[in-house]
Amino acid sequence: MTNPKVATLLKSWVESANSATTDFPLNNLPCGVFSLGDEDPRCGVAIGDFILDVTSLESEGILDLSDDPVFAVPFWNELMDLGPEAWAYFRDQITEMLAEGASKRWVVEDHLVPIKDVTLHLPIMVSEYTDFYAGKHHAMNVGTMMRGAENALPPNWLHIPIGYNGRASSVVVSGTDVRRPLGQTKPADATSPIFGPSRRFDFELELGAIVGRMSEGFISVAEADDNIFGYVLLNDWSARDIQGWEYQPLGPFQSKATATTISPWIVMKAALEPFRTSTPARELPLLPYLREPGPMLYDIALEVGLTPETGTETIISRTNYAQMYYSAAQQLCHHTTSGCRMNVGDLLGSGTISGPEKSARGSMIELSWGGKEPLTLPTGPRSFLEDGDTITLRGAASGNGYKIGFGPCTGRLLPALPVPDWAK
Amino acid sequence: MTNPKVATLLKSWVESANSATTDFPLNNLPCGVFSLGDEDPRCGVAIGDFILDVTSLESEGILDLSDDPVFAVPFWNELMDLGPEAWAYFRDQITEMLAEGASKRWVVEDHLVPIKDVTLHLPIMVSEYTDFYAGKHHAMNVGTMMRGAENALPPNWLHIPIGYNGRASSVVVSGTDVRRPLGQTKPADATSPIFGPSRRFDFELELGAIVGRMSEGFISVAEADDNIFGYVLLNDWSARDIQGWEYQPLGPFQSKATATTISPWIVMKAALEPFRTSTPARELPLLPYLREPGPMLYDIALEVGLTPETGTETIISRTNYAQMYYSAAQQLCHHTTSGCRMNVGDLLGSGTISGPEKSARGSMIELSWGGKEPLTLPTGPRSFLEDGDTITLRGAASGNGYKIGFGPCTGRLLPALPVPDWAK
Repeated sequence: MTNPKVATLLKSWVESANSATTDFPLNNLPCGVFSLGDEDPRCGVAIGDFILDVTSLESEGILDLSDDPVFAVPFWNELMDLGPEAWAYFRDQITEMLAEGASKRWVVEDHLVPIKDVTLHLPIMVSEYTDFYAGKHHAMNVGTMMRGAENALPPNWLHIPIGYNGRASSVVVSGTDVRRPLGQTKPADATSPIFGPSRRFDFELELGAIVGRMSEGFISVAEADDNIFGYVLLNDWSARDIQGWEYQPLGPFQSKATATTISPWIVMKAALEPFRTSTPARELPLLPYLREPGPMLYDIALEVGLTPETGTETIISRTNYAQMYYSAAQQLCHHTTSGCRMNVGDLLGSGTISGPEKSARGSMIELSWGGKEPLTLPTGPRSFLEDGDTITLRGAASGNGYKIGFGPCTGRLLPALPVPDWAK
Repeated sequence: MTNPKVATLLKSWVESANSATTDFPLNNLPCGVFSLGDEDPRCGVAIGDFILDVTSLESEGILDLSDDPVFAVPFWNELMDLGPEAWAYFRDQITEMLAEGASKRWVVEDHLVPIKDVTLHLPIMVSEYTDFYAGKHHAMNVGTMMRGAENALPPNWLHIPIGYNGRASSVVVSGTDVRRPLGQTKPADATSPIFGPSRRFDFELELGAIVGRMSEGFISVAEADDNIFGYVLLNDWSARDIQGWEYQPLGPFQSKATATTISPWIVMKAALEPFRTSTPARELPLLPYLREPGPMLYDIALEVGLTPETGTETIISRTNYAQMYYSAAQQLCHHTTSGCRMNVGDLLGSGTISGPEKSARGSMIELSWGGKEPLTLPTGPRSFLEDGDTITLRGAASGNGYKIGFGPCTGRLLPALPVPDWAK
């Protein structure tokens, strides 16, 4: 079902962008925010081993998108707010500047910064964050563990891309350490709950869609797709023991509020066009409002690496975004049914992206089957995350001699802080 | 358990503020945002029948709180961000200006605007919105209808002030019309869901606490109380039929995303101090982190009026905020257990405030017992809200010869928009 129009590499005068292994060829041009030393963060586009500083391009008049500056602030919300025509114009301009034989090469070259020298920051101001549950293999796995195989899938699941509102203040950029949370849990053998560090801390492999245009009423799947600016990798860190005790009947709350790590680079939807693919066949017909006018998923290979504090990385999962049952466009459409206003900078988590095979499961709770079947790492058996573990998500769509990558989305788990005296 | 130190009326040279029936005596000084005609919105404090324009007081140098202007923006977040000492200093300054015999009367008088002439706006920029479920009578009523009396209260309920993240973009100010939402529902007798207007649209009587200070880790109940700037009335409009179909297992989502109406006036915590009262006796001991160091609720009498499109208002509920099982301080403390960062402008809904009597229920689903025992209004029987209905929440704490009110929190229900052709 993959779109057959797999484009070929666009050649750039930035040599490192022409490699088949870089995440950032000229076809990609993902959007990020970076800083050099103590300087203020600014907006940039990744190209091979470099970042093109679009804040300085704009301030020097080489890039002119609007009467008001778009990149004077260290996030991409202002460009998004200009709308899809401006997004396309921006891509055209940058593509022209960086293409092999570009006439502006000598002007533009001064605005390249080596990626290795920079600190990367959150690329957007996150307005609100919604997390979905749209991967069927994940829903079946988790549902089976919690409610048994017969009741694994909630009755609404094949009809609604169900989701819950997450906490925007939890969103951090790749590279930010994550602190194991404290919380209230109820061990299976206890009569009353306890308070302390989470003992079943987990990651979730997801893709995040970024809403680039405001809407104030119910919009169609097609409009929703138009309003998506791009995608990031997203790790929805989850405290399973806190979640298990708190989630009935209002859903996940503190179990998901510790941190949500996103990749530093937003891959614009335009870069992913050649890789569009359809959602899987419907097991039950959807209501008309959720039907897709065309392929709305993307063929993006994904993997998860786990690196213990002392030890090397093991790839513990390999899967693909095409496994999702619902697309981000369907999720965004459903999000607006109530009349809910969506804002520029809203972030929609896809839900955990698990494949049908055991090796394609996108969380520790699935990989270790709730701790009953621990993974075997070089350092020993492993059920949930341990202090010092680093989780790295990677993802890329593969074209003809090039790939469209997100850069790594990584986070290291720090030990919990001690329980304060007043909480003992 | 009401705090015995009920203060007496502070007299103002604004005569209408000295009435025993005004919501806005000098003891109150609630914070709002208003505009006159086509002018830009500005910050003001209600006093009797007037608003004291603090934006103009500041720009003319009569009020001086910080090196940078605090009221140049049409919301109170900047004052909140200065912290509790600034809040107290601000109150002292305004109290001195408006007190009987004030030396500055002749300077200040020019900055009074009649409330009847203004349009009121959202008083804050809402950062994020969390809604709790902390009223035991409400939880018992709704739980009994949904799961039977034996399973009414979820197992976690007496241990955690459970809550879910709501949608900040849904928050509107009193007076804003609310559009009946479309949504996906599954009628009890249907085999598959349908899409169309909600048929069980409801209000929820709540109080909203406004977080006035940022926190970046786990904070105690006492700190949480310190960080609350003030309170608003809050109507958490709810589509019960959408909720019933969508809420398992991730909690309420589109059922709560249509609108959340708050009163235009934030009553600062300082104004409510004389009315502090304790949460009811614990039915099970709380974990130490949730124990309160002192009374954290307030004795605030509340009522709900329903006015049909053609007809007069009927008061359909009378209750009191002191009915809550958990305080906003406990909710905010619990909200931070995971390390969740809380921001200035976060809004925490208390949960529906029902009392033990039938007449004290804070939602239609409770008042009409899920539609089985309709209310009798002058216009006929009534189970849920009908198009054209106006719901008005009112609340006040009563002192010695004065009251601390919020002004009405009102919203009118408009009919649903037609289902678009592409959704049929």
